Amino acid sequence: MKIYLDCFPCFLRQALEAARMARADEERQRAILDRTMALLRDVPLESTPPEIGDRVHRIVRQLTGNNDPYAAVKAESTREALRLYPRLKALVAEDGDRLERAIRIAIAGNVIDLATGVSFDLEEGLERILHQPFAINDLAAFKRALSEARSILYLADNAGETVFDRILIEALSLPVTYAVKGGPVINDATVADALAAGLGEVAEVVSTGSDAPGTILSRCSAEFRNLYERAELIIAKGQANYETLSDDASARSNLASPLEPRDKRADVSEEGGRLFFLLKVKCPVIARDIGAPVGSIVLKRG
Amino acid sequence: MKIYLDCFPCFLRQALEAARMARADEERQRAILDRTMALLRDVPLESTPPEIGDRVHRIVRQLTGNNDPYAAVKAESTREALRLYPRLKALVAEDGDRLERAIRIAIAGNVIDLATGVSFDLEEGLERILHQPFAINDLAAFKRALSEARSILYLADNAGETVFDRILIEALSLPVTYAVKGGPVINDATVADALAAGLGEVAEVVSTGSDAPGTILSRCSAEFRNLYERAELIIAKGQANYETLSDDASARSNLASPLEPRDKRADVSEEGGRLFFLLKVKCPVIARDIGAPVGSIVLKRG
Repeated sequence: MKIYLDCFPCFLRQALEAARMARADEERQRAILDRTMALLRDVPLESTPPEIGDRVHRIVRQLTGNNDPYAAVKAESTREALRLYPRLKALVAEDGDRLERAIRIAIAGNVIDLATGVSFDLEEGLERILHQPFAINDLAAFKRALSEARSILYLADNAGETVFDRILIEALSLPVTYAVKGGPVINDATVADALAAGLGEVAEVVSTGSDAPGTILSRCSAEFRNLYERAELIIAKGQANYETLSDDASARSNLASPLEPRDKRADVSEEGGRLFFLLKVKCPVIARDIGAPVGSIVLKRG
Repeated sequence: MKIYLDCFPCFLRQALEAARMARADEERQRAILDRTMALLRDVPLESTPPEIGDRVHRIVRQLTGNNDPYAAVKAESTREALRLYPRLKALVAEDGDRLERAIRIAIAGNVIDLATGVSFDLEEGLERILHQPFAINDLAAFKRALSEARSILYLADNAGETVFDRILIEALSLPVTYAVKGGPVINDATVADALAAGLGEVAEVVSTGSDAPGTILSRCSAEFRNLYERAELIIAKGQANYETLSDDASARSNLASPLEPRDKRADVSEEGGRLFFLLKVKCPVIARDIGAPVGSIVLKRG
């Protein structure tokens, strides 16, 4: 997904929030806004939003000297989420489609702002998401893909949300590789964050090799790109992964190997690829792009 | 009220919205954003937000050649509001404190975005505002001030909202001077807009002489400033009037004439001045400044 002009005010808002998170004083905050505006003046509109977000948060880190402004928030989010883990497990065990319930809980992790007022948001957020209809619902295709795949590549999003992902991973009967950021950016999970959330017990935790938001393949390590290209089924969590991968044509085929018969590949490609986006739509620009309203939950085959 | 860094993203958002309202193409929209960012880099933080808003909307008018991007929206808002007028009149006539109901309806005009989905918003918006408690409630002081004043200066806000103001003006038993913008800016009411809404039938409609949002006294005409200085009671409607007048020390005394005994002036000044702000709090920065949450309604003595 390409950036829209609507993203410009949002980048400025993000820069200010991150600057304050890094405890920059007002003068430094303003310097960060100035640098961000200078950056935006030269931004090519063919970029994806996380490509620019990456540069914005780099400015914040550079001008504050704080390499990980969200460290405390991430640790707190993980602690809070771990405290909730038994309750989330109990929710999955209730009646109904357990896989669907686990998917909904994973989305709830994407929705709840674990940094602020978690307990209040949780009650309402979880309850809503457990019953809210999917605006885009490729669950049947996801189940078929699950039955055909031998393993899963799971592209993570935020710290704390990791614990909710764990609930879903535990409901899947396939080995999972859980890919997180190669370094701190916003509140995205790194290897250390994922391990602190216990993801090492249920998945192989790997780094994408990139500290940009989302998954910008050209910025990832060769090892990760290799993993991505060979993956039979990919779960991409959250908005930034959608923004960076929604135009990835390679993911439209679920058969990475060119050795498979061509007609079989064509079949699969028609109904969608090996990539499944799992997210809550929080931003009007993404809403327009994905075709689902702000506030809706989405399980979309890429 | 001074501008905060939080206003920067908001100005960018406003510039984009206005550019689109003026039907600028994407390239022009981007040029407008670039000019706005250049402006923001040099903005003194002692400015009030409407002083910067004024310059932002000037950029939009200049780069689009459209002197009144919101003309159609304003006309439609006024038409819609006039259609509602009989219903609003009936609402005031219901049981209870009629003045308070009229004040609430005037605030409802400030809340309802008449440009989009008015009929839907109206049902909910009016109902809410007729029953929502005031977050700041200087109604008793306002009634005392009304009983002592001989006339009222009413500082208007948006087109369409004018009709809701008319409801309040008709509930006041004093002659009212209704001050509107000296030229088009955003969807603010001008003399033509106010007359189209029938305000000429219930008040003397005058221009502030300025086409900046809010009421920037230094930018108003000498005639208007004279009116303002001599006014015994001023109703200032909406956020922009709060932003531009909240620090106006002269309004802290309700006796403009220096001939009044000093001790009497001091008394009045202690309990507040001749200025009453009437608004719905829509922005987190104003919320912090005024001390009432976003979404709340306020009748505050200045």
